[in-house]
Amino acid sequence: MDYQKILNEIEEELKGELSKGKVADYIPALAEVDGDQFAMTITLENGEQFSVGKYKEEFSIQSISKVLAFSLAIDIYSKSLYKRVGVEPSGNAFNSLVQLEYEHGIPRNPFINAGAIVVVDALMSHFGGDYAALEKVMTFTREISGNPELKFDTVVATSEMEHASRNLSLAHLMKSFGNFENDVTDVVTTYFKQCAIVMTTEELSRAMLYLAFKGTDPISGKQFLNEAQAKRVNALMLTCGHYDASGEFAFHVGLPAKSGVGGGIVAVVPNVMSIAVWSPRLNKYGNSHVGTLALELFTTKTGLSIF
Amino acid sequence: MDYQKILNEIEEELKGELSKGKVADYIPALAEVDGDQFAMTITLENGEQFSVGKYKEEFSIQSISKVLAFSLAIDIYSKSLYKRVGVEPSGNAFNSLVQLEYEHGIPRNPFINAGAIVVVDALMSHFGGDYAALEKVMTFTREISGNPELKFDTVVATSEMEHASRNLSLAHLMKSFGNFENDVTDVVTTYFKQCAIVMTTEELSRAMLYLAFKGTDPISGKQFLNEAQAKRVNALMLTCGHYDASGEFAFHVGLPAKSGVGGGIVAVVPNVMSIAVWSPRLNKYGNSHVGTLALELFTTKTGLSIF
Amino acid sequence: MDYQKILNEIEEELKGELSKGKVADYIPALAEVDGDQFAMTITLENGEQFSVGKYKEEFSIQSISKVLAFSLAIDIYSKSLYKRVGVEPSGNAFNSLVQLEYEHGIPRNPFINAGAIVVVDALMSHFGGDYAALEKVMTFTREISGNPELKFDTVVATSEMEHASRNLSLAHLMKSFGNFENDVTDVVTTYFKQCAIVMTTEELSRAMLYLAFKGTDPISGKQFLNEAQAKRVNALMLTCGHYDASGEFAFHVGLPAKSGVGGGIVAVVPNVMSIAVWSPRLNKYGNSHVGTLALELFTTKTGLSIF
Amino acid sequence: MDYQKILNEIEEELKGELSKGKVADYIPALAEVDGDQFAMTITLENGEQFSVGKYKEEFSIQSISKVLAFSLAIDIYSKSLYKRVGVEPSGNAFNSLVQLEYEHGIPRNPFINAGAIVVVDALMSHFGGDYAALEKVMTFTREISGNPELKFDTVVATSEMEHASRNLSLAHLMKSFGNFENDVTDVVTTYFKQCAIVMTTEELSRAMLYLAFKGTDPISGKQFLNEAQAKRVNALMLTCGHYDASGEFAFHVGLPAKSGVGGGIVAVVPNVMSIAVWSPRLNKYGNSHVGTLALELFTTKTGLSIF
Repeated sequence: MDYQKILNEIEEELKGELSKGKVADYIPALAEVDGDQFAMTITLENGEQFSVGKYKEEFSIQSISKVLAFSLAIDIYSKSLYKRVGVEPSGNAFNSLVQLEYEHGIPRNPFINAGAIVVVDALMSHFGGDYAALEKVMTFTREISGNPELKFDTVVATSEMEHASRNLSLAHLMKSFGNFENDVTDVVTTYFKQCAIVMTTEELSRAMLYLAFKGTDPISGKQFLNEAQAKRVNALMLTCGHYDASGEFAFHVGLPAKSGVGGGIVAVVPNVMSIAVWSPRLNKYGNSHVGTLALELFTTKTGLSIF
Repeated sequence: MDYQKILNEIEEELKGELSKGKVADYIPALAEVDGDQFAMTITLENGEQFSVGKYKEEFSIQSISKVLAFSLAIDIYSKSLYKRVGVEPSGNAFNSLVQLEYEHGIPRNPFINAGAIVVVDALMSHFGGDYAALEKVMTFTREISGNPELKFDTVVATSEMEHASRNLSLAHLMKSFGNFENDVTDVVTTYFKQCAIVMTTEELSRAMLYLAFKGTDPISGKQFLNEAQAKRVNALMLTCGHYDASGEFAFHVGLPAKSGVGGGIVAVVPNVMSIAVWSPRLNKYGNSHVGTLALELFTTKTGLSIF
Repeated sequence: MDYQKILNEIEEELKGELSKGKVADYIPALAEVDGDQFAMTITLENGEQFSVGKYKEEFSIQSISKVLAFSLAIDIYSKSLYKRVGVEPSGNAFNSLVQLEYEHGIPRNPFINAGAIVVVDALMSHFGGDYAALEKVMTFTREISGNPELKFDTVVATSEMEHASRNLSLAHLMKSFGNFENDVTDVVTTYFKQCAIVMTTEELSRAMLYLAFKGTDPISGKQFLNEAQAKRVNALMLTCGHYDASGEFAFHVGLPAKSGVGGGIVAVVPNVMSIAVWSPRLNKYGNSHVGTLALELFTTKTGLSIF
Repeated sequence: MDYQKILNEIEEELKGELSKGKVADYIPALAEVDGDQFAMTITLENGEQFSVGKYKEEFSIQSISKVLAFSLAIDIYSKSLYKRVGVEPSGNAFNSLVQLEYEHGIPRNPFINAGAIVVVDALMSHFGGDYAALEKVMTFTREISGNPELKFDTVVATSEMEHASRNLSLAHLMKSFGNFENDVTDVVTTYFKQCAIVMTTEELSRAMLYLAFKGTDPISGKQFLNEAQAKRVNALMLTCGHYDASGEFAFHVGLPAKSGVGGGIVAVVPNVMSIAVWSPRLNKYGNSHVGTLALELFTTKTGLSIF
């Protein structure tokens, strides 16, 4: 298949959509991003990449980092963390605090904020504190992305912490139910740093190869997850990767994928490729408007799908 | 792969589990089924079947029928029905009336009761009444199962109608929001008849081939759905097929599947096979206890998964 | 105090408010009422009445009838009905089906629809069917109002039944929880007939004397409730009489009172008087806009309050 | 009426109830209180007091302090605070975070925790910080209780702050909706200090006289609230004073009253007397078990009620 041609077509066909949707504006550092940008990269098993648009431009990966943190925590998950966070879609148009209270402080899954915060809390307990946990996430991300210089944006992380009321509320609520081990502020601060990692679609697409190939990075040959674990992370992305539009995304795109409020989306075609797409304007569910359309077009044009 | 051997192993390994869980007892006709039964059948592209246990025993397919009705309605869905029922997981440990009210009478997806009732309502409007709609479902099911004698159990259907308060409440609620077109009692009665279809795992497994092979029955060569439609039904089964344990099922089994309260579960491995399993005792989520374990064992032993 | 003068002042001061709010329009029979009408009557212990506006005009008392039905049921309540319906404010901006499901089919209080329907169900069980129960309500209402000709509006009752989806949904939901004894349609039909009773403010004010005077009608000397029972009905009106604006009403008016969607409100000043006011336009909580203001003005001008 | 005799009877009749219920144990300082204690004091217009039991024993007034803080804030309330907190019963068996989220961070009333925290926040903004606000509350309480030495228990306040997760969660949630003006930790700390005020039933009963007599302390002649304001605080106590058992309390007792988790309850009979009762064991709603029964007995024996 001529992937480059397909990517070029997608870029062309979606030009009229670039002005639709709304850039995340809950913190100034994200709000000032130029919304009309677009980039898409696919990476094959042998590392070959095809890109279109601003694929060298760095953006804030935000919730995509939840996949990385959960991958790191999956051993802990099978031992004990599964009691503290579930793997069910939240399916909640109305906001997660409600469900979190009904369900006694146990978040539905690791990809909603409450669940991702619990994952960070568990990583901190496991690795010995906020500094060690964050280092593990950074090292892992540098390794899978092939960029040893990867960093997080301190301006974004600090700005997030200044607008953290909702996440602090979630964390304190979980603590009130006994589902918290470390200091609330430390955990939430670490969580924001992890979310503030910046990457290009080139880096992000390359980083996801381990999930496309049963847990082993086909380029370095290094195994990060075993086959069953990789399958589970992918299943989780499919059922929970797009907040309350996960069903919609599975229905229309049909690939395991995870979105971030910075406008990025990663997706994998098991045994074939990993994909990263970026466009900052979001649809009403908080997922990249053009990114979602690009992935839908890509699966339509290539016939690639897991179903 | 020696599928027969694998099925035999599964039967053997799960013997100790047959007494666990609880047969559905909300109506007498279901409650009296012998709970310790088990059957499993897989069907390959060429029609070859491998079975184990009581695969000639008929059982009530119940919610599995929702997949059949939705397949029939998918043309209507893309035209208008999508406004009346969503494709998102309900993710609701607490019961669906709550969500249905918050979301103004629009059910989350066609596989929860409210959504399936709306699908029947739409089929009745489309095909001209309850009799015509039910006939279409029966004809379709007979065709894909290869059993022209297939029928529904009138005792079960009548008994359901006598214990229909919850479903009547759902239907009247949707009507109060304007999301209902036909007479409430007619629709719910038709819905119960459809749920009361009885099949064996042999028949059911064979019937699901069209979903395993992109919408076309590989034996008859007849196309029931186009490729995109088949992909969508499969996506829906993956995200919404097991009520509030759909995420758990995707996480552990990793196949598009749909369960019924009669103890049946169907699953598909796209491009490879369709599977039907049956064991009447249910876990706390209302899915077959042994059926779920059998599918998990099957994917572990075969390595088959969509991820 | 010169009550007539006070009533005249109130009428004068509220003229500019008569066009505000919205007449109930969910059934045609109520929607066609002229919205700009107003009437108010107070009745003293000796039967003396002071009125203003259209106090000879009949209107649909609607939910005010819940007070009458509950008064009739209060003996049953202390024996068994208290297990089937509570006495707590529902406090639910979002609608009562949600709460009813969380609370397993037990309505919060007898003045929300679900609770009032349970009361009718209990009256039917107690008195031997829908006809007998309705007769009891009618006889009681005729007796306390001093109008032996009192009737209900069959056009309104029939029209309600044609738009009964929400109430049927509530009733079926309660039945699904085992909190229902008679046929759903019979109970809801009887409930609508009771709600469709028509009265003038003169009649309604006079009818409420028994609640103002410790359960005994001071004119006929007939005891309908004992002192403790009358106190309880009044407490219930204060805490639950105005749906989700009950606290607001208590805060601003400070009298036990019950409103109806037909625009009527009854209130009592214990040991002093009973009051009926009517104006069809409703505020956003479904209570008479001008009626609420009239009662607030009345308590401000007279200093009458229970606090 | 021989009030002393009635109080003696109540003490005698409730002896068998003293061991029922459970002392609040969420913080050690409250958990270690001897649960089998009882005290009750009534205070008449002329200051005459009748007491029974341990009426010289100090206890933590806890949520009763919300009445004091709201009395101080009522001028602010009529100007602006009414936009930040309502006056409706919360009517929520399931916990207040849910409702708070649905209702965009606006608490239902000033007597649930979220609402009381907003009141403290408003007092801090108005009086210039946490120190000034707390001083105002202390000064006011000393004045109305006639005890210039009154203080709060620093051990209890500190202990509360160490178990503050739920309240911090509520406060951060309100802040996320923009309904918060000061530092979350400062406000919650001040709130806990106010709740930790210790008083005897003698002091508490005397302190409530201003609410029994239209806002003016009949002993000092000093007006703290005007008549309309006093009426409103009383209305609020009646509809919201006992959390999710407020309707029950109004139904059975019929007096404006406010309970605290320390086992105290205050009540007023407008124009007649104020009452304080204390017994540490709580019923399932978090209100004093014996205290509630004592007030019910008192109203039954005296016939005193507002209805």
